[in-house]
Amino acid sequence: MSVDIDAPFDIQTPALLVDRDKLDANLERMRERVGAATGDSKHRPHLKTVKSAALARRITKALGTEAITVSTLKEAEIFADEGYSDILYAVGITSAKLDRVARLRARGVDLTVVTDNIAAARIVAGYCENHAIAIPVLIEIDSDGHRSGISPDDSAGLLHIAETLAPSAELRGVMTHAGGSYDAATPEELRACAEEEREAVLRAVRILRDAGYPAPMTSIGSTPTVLNTLDLTGISEVRAGVYVFFDLVMAGIGVCKPEDIALSVLTTVIGHQRDKGWIITDAGWMALSRDRGTAGQAVDQGYGLVCDARGTVLPDMIVSSANQEHGVISIRTGSEAQLPDLPVGSQLRILPNHACATTAQHSEYIVLDPAGKEVARWPRFSGW
Amino acid sequence: MSVDIDAPFDIQTPALLVDRDKLDANLERMRERVGAATGDSKHRPHLKTVKSAALARRITKALGTEAITVSTLKEAEIFADEGYSDILYAVGITSAKLDRVARLRARGVDLTVVTDNIAAARIVAGYCENHAIAIPVLIEIDSDGHRSGISPDDSAGLLHIAETLAPSAELRGVMTHAGGSYDAATPEELRACAEEEREAVLRAVRILRDAGYPAPMTSIGSTPTVLNTLDLTGISEVRAGVYVFFDLVMAGIGVCKPEDIALSVLTTVIGHQRDKGWIITDAGWMALSRDRGTAGQAVDQGYGLVCDARGTVLPDMIVSSANQEHGVISIRTGSEAQLPDLPVGSQLRILPNHACATTAQHSEYIVLDPAGKEVARWPRFSGW
Repeated sequence: MSVDIDAPFDIQTPALLVDRDKLDANLERMRERVGAATGDSKHRPHLKTVKSAALARRITKALGTEAITVSTLKEAEIFADEGYSDILYAVGITSAKLDRVARLRARGVDLTVVTDNIAAARIVAGYCENHAIAIPVLIEIDSDGHRSGISPDDSAGLLHIAETLAPSAELRGVMTHAGGSYDAATPEELRACAEEEREAVLRAVRILRDAGYPAPMTSIGSTPTVLNTLDLTGISEVRAGVYVFFDLVMAGIGVCKPEDIALSVLTTVIGHQRDKGWIITDAGWMALSRDRGTAGQAVDQGYGLVCDARGTVLPDMIVSSANQEHGVISIRTGSEAQLPDLPVGSQLRILPNHACATTAQHSEYIVLDPAGKEVARWPRFSGW
Repeated sequence: MSVDIDAPFDIQTPALLVDRDKLDANLERMRERVGAATGDSKHRPHLKTVKSAALARRITKALGTEAITVSTLKEAEIFADEGYSDILYAVGITSAKLDRVARLRARGVDLTVVTDNIAAARIVAGYCENHAIAIPVLIEIDSDGHRSGISPDDSAGLLHIAETLAPSAELRGVMTHAGGSYDAATPEELRACAEEEREAVLRAVRILRDAGYPAPMTSIGSTPTVLNTLDLTGISEVRAGVYVFFDLVMAGIGVCKPEDIALSVLTTVIGHQRDKGWIITDAGWMALSRDRGTAGQAVDQGYGLVCDARGTVLPDMIVSSANQEHGVISIRTGSEAQLPDLPVGSQLRILPNHACATTAQHSEYIVLDPAGKEVARWPRFSGW
């Protein structure tokens, strides 16, 4: 088969591509960064972004760890099947999920759960007492007001949760997620977020330890903060997820360059509306996701930034709108760039706003070497 | 097991619920509406919303048709396995997809494809000639400037495509999708969109027929226009998809009421940030989708409108923000409603902005009768 320069891939589109060497470079950057920071933190990578056994193994091997973080019990169950036995389920626990937690622990998986409130602490403690097991629990700390968690300065609240858990569950420590860092704009702000995250966790765990609870685990994590931290003193582990691929949101806050993004959606041109300056493709929001995470950033990337089939960014071309299976590509508003002539059948790659959302629309990763040759297909799972 | 009034379902959350009787009422409304309009149109329901064999059968049986529309070749292949043999693939065709089209036709499936340009017409005609088959093609018409399609008044362009296809492919007719109707605001505007859609298709097909092409098929479709049309004279078939479930976008343009929405996401309260007026749940954007289709409407429903576990809308409670596996529920800005006290473990239902996007995040429908009893689970597929 001859290779068409505009359509080099014999792949049905839309499809999710991974640039293997960029992926590996991103993993190496995370390993180096945490290794260079003060302190002795281990990695507990968040696998919610990848949801793939093959990728999980590549990540944990590169980082030199066997500890992982998940966002669903399904991830915990599947990664347990793959041999992982040190897992943090980082979303607040509720009663109906405890049977699945107990089954995983009975299989020998050291699964830790999270809560930020007395009601759930009572439920976990009661479950542990009734089943004669000791589920490890982290108290979630709110370091920046963006989501869940108890204030690190609410001593009474922290101690009340600790006392509630203590008789039967195992209070293992504290965790936080500095989601506010996604709104940072400069390296200085990112470093400030990282320091705020670390200090919040240390203040909270000090309250628990001063009251006699060992609370050995201090867990922080978000890609922007971990990659910008200089000091991890007192932090037992770091969780991060999206850096594996990076995305346009991360590029927008300066954590990576578009050229570092290891993930893209391969698409084919299916038509044009030349009077409107539109190229129509077969990657709509079903392939790209509805995520518009760059909409609030300095540079709005629409539904994604356009590259040629080899992965080179095309100046100022974005997916400006999306239907379910149609993408509309045009030149960014305000740009003087010219829309290239891309005939029907041409292939393009779209860099995603948000890797976690775009991967979720696909059931496999098609892995390419630097020459663009397909070297593997890695299945991806979904669900809860 | 005792039934908790706040958590009546023994279902792992988040989960996708279908209210069976609302679904059936929505199907009956579509059947009646098209039956009452002038003309003799058949139904060709768009199954891109449901992607489920069980639901496909329920829909086509209710509407009295065996013809279907799909948005991907995977849908065509799976529904062909289920016995459907009259299928329209309603996204512009390209070269790389023709082998799959030919394989389906060789199985006895009357699969029709779509294009709006000469380049694709040449590709299809060339393929047909090389393989000694006659693939049926509809020319896509642009009735309202919102996406793909050739102008219905571009006689030269229409005839050029027809001439290009004629020697080997089968020019079967024309189709359009009045996507502009999603921006309509009143019943009068919706009726105007419906009439504009019909007239565009009739003008275009007249050009082809006057030139001697039979072009028997005239296909239109979108939920807002089909449900508001009074006159389908000259239209051979109607395609619509989202009315099966309806959603908040459709409610926002007045096509349904929130109470008609047959689809919801069941979620569990996992915590609170009481000082901020937030309830935190386990349905984030992974369960709800990132679709913010109501953001541009008169009433912005955030990531979804909140109901109690029985499905009754709670006044002015919306999912105001969403992380991957966390939803944040709060009272709508400007409302004086009070946030109810919903303890950890309470179940809620979230009505979706956009049914097509929310279903895409799930692999099964959990079907409930009017008493809220689970009566079936219908698997759902994804991919291309």
